[in-house]
Amino acid sequence: MSQTICAIATAAGGAIGIVRISGPRTLEILSNVFSHNLSDALPYTIHYGHIEDIDDVLVSVFRAPHSYTGEDAAEISCHGSRYILNKVLERLVEQGARLAAPGEFTQRAFLNGKMDLSQAEAVADLIASTNRATHDLALSQLRGGISSELSRLRDQLLRLTSLLELELDFSDHEELEFADRTELLALAETIDGRVRQLADTFQAGNALKNGIPVAIIGAPNVGKSTLLNALVGEERAIVSDIQGTTRDAIEDEIQLSGITFRFIDTAGIRHTDDQIETLGIERSIAAAQRAQIVLLMTEPGVPYPDIPLREDQTVIRIINKCEDSCKPEGSPPSREGLGVGLISAKYGVGLDDLRHRLIDAAPKLPDGDVIVTSARHYEALCRAHDSLTRVIAGLGGNNSQFSILNFQLSTDLIAEDLRLTLDALADITGGAITPQETLNNIFSHFCVGK
Amino acid sequence: MSQTICAIATAAGGAIGIVRISGPRTLEILSNVFSHNLSDALPYTIHYGHIEDIDDVLVSVFRAPHSYTGEDAAEISCHGSRYILNKVLERLVEQGARLAAPGEFTQRAFLNGKMDLSQAEAVADLIASTNRATHDLALSQLRGGISSELSRLRDQLLRLTSLLELELDFSDHEELEFADRTELLALAETIDGRVRQLADTFQAGNALKNGIPVAIIGAPNVGKSTLLNALVGEERAIVSDIQGTTRDAIEDEIQLSGITFRFIDTAGIRHTDDQIETLGIERSIAAAQRAQIVLLMTEPGVPYPDIPLREDQTVIRIINKCEDSCKPEGSPPSREGLGVGLISAKYGVGLDDLRHRLIDAAPKLPDGDVIVTSARHYEALCRAHDSLTRVIAGLGGNNSQFSILNFQLSTDLIAEDLRLTLDALADITGGAITPQETLNNIFSHFCVGK
Repeated sequence: MSQTICAIATAAGGAIGIVRISGPRTLEILSNVFSHNLSDALPYTIHYGHIEDIDDVLVSVFRAPHSYTGEDAAEISCHGSRYILNKVLERLVEQGARLAAPGEFTQRAFLNGKMDLSQAEAVADLIASTNRATHDLALSQLRGGISSELSRLRDQLLRLTSLLELELDFSDHEELEFADRTELLALAETIDGRVRQLADTFQAGNALKNGIPVAIIGAPNVGKSTLLNALVGEERAIVSDIQGTTRDAIEDEIQLSGITFRFIDTAGIRHTDDQIETLGIERSIAAAQRAQIVLLMTEPGVPYPDIPLREDQTVIRIINKCEDSCKPEGSPPSREGLGVGLISAKYGVGLDDLRHRLIDAAPKLPDGDVIVTSARHYEALCRAHDSLTRVIAGLGGNNSQFSILNFQLSTDLIAEDLRLTLDALADITGGAITPQETLNNIFSHFCVGK
Repeated sequence: MSQTICAIATAAGGAIGIVRISGPRTLEILSNVFSHNLSDALPYTIHYGHIEDIDDVLVSVFRAPHSYTGEDAAEISCHGSRYILNKVLERLVEQGARLAAPGEFTQRAFLNGKMDLSQAEAVADLIASTNRATHDLALSQLRGGISSELSRLRDQLLRLTSLLELELDFSDHEELEFADRTELLALAETIDGRVRQLADTFQAGNALKNGIPVAIIGAPNVGKSTLLNALVGEERAIVSDIQGTTRDAIEDEIQLSGITFRFIDTAGIRHTDDQIETLGIERSIAAAQRAQIVLLMTEPGVPYPDIPLREDQTVIRIINKCEDSCKPEGSPPSREGLGVGLISAKYGVGLDDLRHRLIDAAPKLPDGDVIVTSARHYEALCRAHDSLTRVIAGLGGNNSQFSILNFQLSTDLIAEDLRLTLDALADITGGAITPQETLNNIFSHFCVGK
């Protein structure tokens, strides 16, 4: 952190490009590169000038601790040519700045206490957000949604710890002990309930963040690829009349109501001796089992394929090619649709109904509640739950005929498990000392310049 | 210009994204969208806050006339997600801003007198610049290189006009007339000389801006594709031992000493009955004729191909496969090279020498001189030269036995041609009234957000 770091913060090819610099020597280095001396520049001011032989630029000055990183920092706004941005970077490096590692600006913001670890992670999610669902989840996390929730849980855990100590102090008054134990137990169970609730949001949060996997499963030639094309609106999958055309699962995405659905186009399910096709079918069944929503698809007069599905999967049954059963010979079916689950992928009929059923099948997020979207957070919550389970067992176990010794030991063990719970939760926000390895792992997934 | 315009000014996918807004209602619209009221914000200040439900942002405030456009303007710096940038734009449009057309910010800068037309064009060139040569040309033009040169010429033309009027005033003093005419003529010729000089820089300027076309011409199988690969450093062209493999001209670029060379890989030149190959050979010869540098390539014992070339083309003769003539059987040739023009594309020997010869063959730009890189400027200079040619003819023509009537008419005609010359030069900087069509044509080639 004693070094001054710099990086290009914008993508190539725009009208404007930004080079970012942060660290103790920021203003000194800039003054050697820029046409004006910025040593005495006021914070939050903009300076127009030039970098010799490179460009006319605007320099925005930020002063520690009121900057993104918490250090002296600046942003140089140039014409958005990659050549110019690289030249500016070169000039800064010549003067002693170092090229920043991915996420290093945000890592410094974290290390300087400008944000906790879950908020830092939200920055990367926010930059990567491509729709309303992912954006809203990341913004809520950046605004400290999960942090304040965890801070409440931490307060309750500390109360539990102090109650435990109180019980210890009064442990010779046997008549008090029972009441305390019940209260302790109730509190531990409340905390654990909330921890499990949070962990339970991960599946939905993760699905919304990464897109909800949908598998279209059906016999060959019922029109799976045609349906995918109709939904995606482009000719991505290869469509043909020959049975067994689709051997590889082609993925595509659609956005419905701000939610991403990741479609898996699969091979037709049927008995076959073709080895390659058999592989494709096995892959289709495996894909169906990984998917959260299964579109089970057939056509009039053909039974649905019989494949094993999980209980927690949503199955939407659709019958395609309904145009033949309800239209006058040779004319397309009416736009009003054919009834629930009856579609004509070819003529695009019944697809709006199908889209609504997909949106209904998407995981619902409790309004205003904190959603866990990070596997790291989920893992930490599971660890917290494990420790709490031991705390609850310890509290609710042999709570009568306790010898002083056993009780002491048990209390120590319970206290240790409470500490582990606190540690697990602290890992999420980085409140405890976070190992460098964890930090590297988190920030290496950032883009350079953030 | 009474409308307030907005646009995303950065490319998608960076850490930071910028939305730009400019126009009289900028601060009012921003105040409705941003967490703070900016009506009284000082110019060149930065404000940290949020746009509700969208992002935490930094807003940079600029006030008329001290902004890029000359109007009230602001830049909103967000997390670089395309979703967020679009949402911010949406919010601004809801409040009454309008999406900007390509180049509209720069067009306003021009209309508000912040830069002349040639400088505005330089902005687009600067953004598109990918190497030192194009960057330096654009920057010099942005800094007003051509503008101040043209302003000097304009002063001289105005002096010529006033001298012409002076001559008119003294036209009854026959003894004065001759001297004046000579002076006028000398001045017109000086101006025309400079106009031609400037126009002459266009070929070099254009070559540097768009890359210098180089054609590699030789018999089949002398190693043209291998040489191209060795120079470009990647396997782009298809290389094979079968004669006549390369039928299509594959273009590739290299940067040498800050200059772009656009390589044209051509079909081998030989007699053939294959119709498709014949087409390829014809194309190669045509390509050779369009190229500025021709690498005439052969191998030991084979004569150079005999193709028609222009006088102003630079021809570099090279003999490939020199490894066989100078190395011990089976070992690569020494790194020191084989002599001028003798190369081994296969072993990369002699290529540094070749690279230096390419750099030497690139058009030289007179140091510190103004270079014309725009076809629009070149065309205007040619028009100025045409008018000046008529001025010179008018001045140098029948300069003795002049009747008053003839002289008056001639002076009028000369004055008219001088006006045309001034107009042509003014078109470059947009000093005269520039037709809307010309402006649209210039700015439609900009990116949105600039």
